[in-house]
Amino acid sequence: MSQPLIPPPGKPFDLSRFDPRYDGGLDKEASKAELARLAVRIDELQNTLYAAKSHAVLIVTQGIDTSGKDGLVKDVFQVTGPIGCSVVSFGVPTAEELAHDYLWRYRKEMPRRGNIVVFNRSYYESVLVERVKGIAPEKVWTRRYGEINDLERFLIDNGTVILKFFLHISKDEQRERLQERVDNPKKHWKFNLGDLEERKLWDDYQAAFQDMVAHCNTEIAPWHVVPADRNWYRNLVVAQAIVAKLESLDLKYPLSTDDLTGVKVV
Amino acid sequence: MSQPLIPPPGKPFDLSRFDPRYDGGLDKEASKAELARLAVRIDELQNTLYAAKSHAVLIVTQGIDTSGKDGLVKDVFQVTGPIGCSVVSFGVPTAEELAHDYLWRYRKEMPRRGNIVVFNRSYYESVLVERVKGIAPEKVWTRRYGEINDLERFLIDNGTVILKFFLHISKDEQRERLQERVDNPKKHWKFNLGDLEERKLWDDYQAAFQDMVAHCNTEIAPWHVVPADRNWYRNLVVAQAIVAKLESLDLKYPLSTDDLTGVKVV
Repeated sequence: MSQPLIPPPGKPFDLSRFDPRYDGGLDKEASKAELARLAVRIDELQNTLYAAKSHAVLIVTQGIDTSGKDGLVKDVFQVTGPIGCSVVSFGVPTAEELAHDYLWRYRKEMPRRGNIVVFNRSYYESVLVERVKGIAPEKVWTRRYGEINDLERFLIDNGTVILKFFLHISKDEQRERLQERVDNPKKHWKFNLGDLEERKLWDDYQAAFQDMVAHCNTEIAPWHVVPADRNWYRNLVVAQAIVAKLESLDLKYPLSTDDLTGVKVV
Repeated sequence: MSQPLIPPPGKPFDLSRFDPRYDGGLDKEASKAELARLAVRIDELQNTLYAAKSHAVLIVTQGIDTSGKDGLVKDVFQVTGPIGCSVVSFGVPTAEELAHDYLWRYRKEMPRRGNIVVFNRSYYESVLVERVKGIAPEKVWTRRYGEINDLERFLIDNGTVILKFFLHISKDEQRERLQERVDNPKKHWKFNLGDLEERKLWDDYQAAFQDMVAHCNTEIAPWHVVPADRNWYRNLVVAQAIVAKLESLDLKYPLSTDDLTGVKVV
């Protein structure tokens, strides 16, 4: 059965009906070849965006531990160089960040026009980890959905394009990926025993993801619910979404501000 | 005749004896193949650096207009993704930046441990454009060489690795590249008539580059004087220098902070 990448905005949303192993019946090798083509296209579009300086692009990634946020960026931007494209990872807030409103540290890192910035975790953590761990009381985190929708509307009205990807994996898949981090010494640095405590909160996180999508899947900034058990399918649909969005902007290399007719450099 | 990539620190330096067209007698196609191999190696080393978080890496690029600073980064980091590797371009300072000391805006952008940051132009502009355009008086810009050497020593003593590349092109090569920007509509956005005014200051800039290298080519942070008329040779020697430096750090994937013996994820 076909599964939409974007749930219909404004309709009830049930995360449990979205299969993390869904792959659209596509062929893995053909999809990898298609990703390679899309990665080149993303690079072209990013170069034009950088020259045009007409829009800023914010890409938000969310997902539970091991859902593949880093791997996604590595694969989708495999051709794109670091000029005008960067990643910001948000970890535990610093004392200075905690002394400000919860959106402050995210606003500081917003892309300038011409640039793509990928948020590895984002302001959505304020309705995810802060809810699950009880850092913010319910009265506060429930208010934040509306505040986040307001933030996104403000950004969009002021020239930022927003793409939001929720990487949806299954509990079985997370077990395998955590075990791989334990078993593979090159991956030890990504693992500590606290990750197993986090895993015990699986159902709470799923409820928080469910409500995040339900409340913040807007027409102007919809959530892509990305089936992410299979990396190749995850990469393909995200790359397709990025290309489609950037192409819709009708980006063009700008002209020089000067008339260059007949100019000879001596 | 062989031309050193790094002039001997502490010895007199004469830029006019460095040929911008030098290519070491290497074969272009073989060098491009070698660059492809080095780009993969840089990606591996960057991944390890990102995990190890033992060093920060600052890559400084300087060179006159059209010397290929952007192209260099695009080519050398063609495999490296944007996670943990970013580029900061410094343009005309803002009012806020001008209200601070001249190093302030550069210090703010220094890499954190685990990351590579490439400066497209850098604090060296304070002894280049500020000297050539008379923005800083001679008494001030001459003092800055020592201040910059002090800055670099401080950074190195505190865990930052510094690589400095001066992209050295000939006046003829610049003419061709500027003309290409005039003639190719996709490159118009990189050009305005002011670039021709800057070109008239060619000799002044060469004198400033000469003194920059002469004063700031230190043992701990030497200048690479990169023959940059041929992009493929420029890319090759810079990639080789980056690989050699990163390999010298003996980077290792860190262990987990926890004992993972026999851990089973359930």
